[in-house]
Amino acid sequence: MRYQLYYWPDIQGRGEFVRLALEDAGAAYDDVARAKGGMARMMAIMKEEKRPPFAPPFLKAGRLTIAQVADILFYLGPRLRLAPADEAGRLWLQQLQLTVTDFVKEIHDTHHPVGSGLYYEDQKTEAQRYTQGFLGARAPKYLGYFERVLKNSGGPNLLGRKFSYIDLSMFQLIEGLRHAFPKGMARIERATPGLTALHERVAQRPRIKAYLASERRIPFNASGIFRRYPELDG
Amino acid sequence: MRYQLYYWPDIQGRGEFVRLALEDAGAAYDDVARAKGGMARMMAIMKEEKRPPFAPPFLKAGRLTIAQVADILFYLGPRLRLAPADEAGRLWLQQLQLTVTDFVKEIHDTHHPVGSGLYYEDQKTEAQRYTQGFLGARAPKYLGYFERVLKNSGGPNLLGRKFSYIDLSMFQLIEGLRHAFPKGMARIERATPGLTALHERVAQRPRIKAYLASERRIPFNASGIFRRYPELDG
Repeated sequence: MRYQLYYWPDIQGRGEFVRLALEDAGAAYDDVARAKGGMARMMAIMKEEKRPPFAPPFLKAGRLTIAQVADILFYLGPRLRLAPADEAGRLWLQQLQLTVTDFVKEIHDTHHPVGSGLYYEDQKTEAQRYTQGFLGARAPKYLGYFERVLKNSGGPNLLGRKFSYIDLSMFQLIEGLRHAFPKGMARIERATPGLTALHERVAQRPRIKAYLASERRIPFNASGIFRRYPELDG
Repeated sequence: MRYQLYYWPDIQGRGEFVRLALEDAGAAYDDVARAKGGMARMMAIMKEEKRPPFAPPFLKAGRLTIAQVADILFYLGPRLRLAPADEAGRLWLQQLQLTVTDFVKEIHDTHHPVGSGLYYEDQKTEAQRYTQGFLGARAPKYLGYFERVLKNSGGPNLLGRKFSYIDLSMFQLIEGLRHAFPKGMARIERATPGLTALHERVAQRPRIKAYLASERRIPFNASGIFRRYPELDG
């Protein structure tokens, strides 16, 4: 099966959680909107589908169109051998991925607390207040939670022996948070040595390593979820 | 199977999306934290579980513990006959429920845009700015999307002929938004007559009607997701 991923062409954004799974599995896929005419195709699908996505990313898999990162990964997981086979294991994995979803939204809101339709410059003061609570309480709470899950699992992965898409998502979270908040993350990671080691192991996986060094990996920038605004990293 | 639902005892909150499914199906369940000693039990589980919930609500179903509303509903759906049986249908239903999850977070943020750890009174000005964009753009976008999904499905439910848990969630969203923003919603609902009719039909389902009239339904209040602050409903 060859997959078609549809996502904004200029950012890692939420699409990156899907890309990492496809890349790690060595799956055949097209990153449609990054090719010529792809954006128009993406917008047309959002308009015309009988079961339309609310927003990108979405994945075409044969006759299926699936949106929402956690739903896409739930579908792909067993097919890419990045999920356990049993129902209890899949539900637990999905529960963790949904907690990543919540975390990603809060990360996004560090630079856009008042409204995604407004410029960062028009909510800079509020962003600073929001980020204070984020770096002081929320990020340590989320990462502390995943550190505990990792420890409980017996390691070396978040599900224990089985490597899964949640490990790839955790890699991306840590990579992105380090980019956005180098100072804040240095402090927070003192309490999450297990996640730090997991991040390093994921970065060394051959296909991930090759992907990160390729042009397929879009660099962090000032339009994505993880943005480096030094004034926020107090 | 008798289920145990664990959620904060004094608010509808996110737990309500699960309660509505259990109630509509006439399922046997305990709303644990509302009974004597239940809160202590809930906190103990969050501490002690090997696969811990990040936050309530969570559901105990035999040996399973499942957190995250969309994950709980994904599990319960087929068992309560509130989901289609085929994979494509279940994925589509979950995709819609995840869009509800995103919407609920934005609704919550109308009164807490700067931080969930701060009082509303300390972010009132920001809440007004946030809610302007919410009522002017975000809520119409979300509800317009679901109106389109309903129309595409052929009705009378969001999945077409099959009544499912997304219809119950949509009922709750409309009920809550009307409570929080009576003026704003009166405007918005002019463009979503299908959802308005769906809301009315759900309210008339015998078990839902009985539930809403019972003491099991916690009234809207100033601690939940849907809060009536007239200054926000501009």
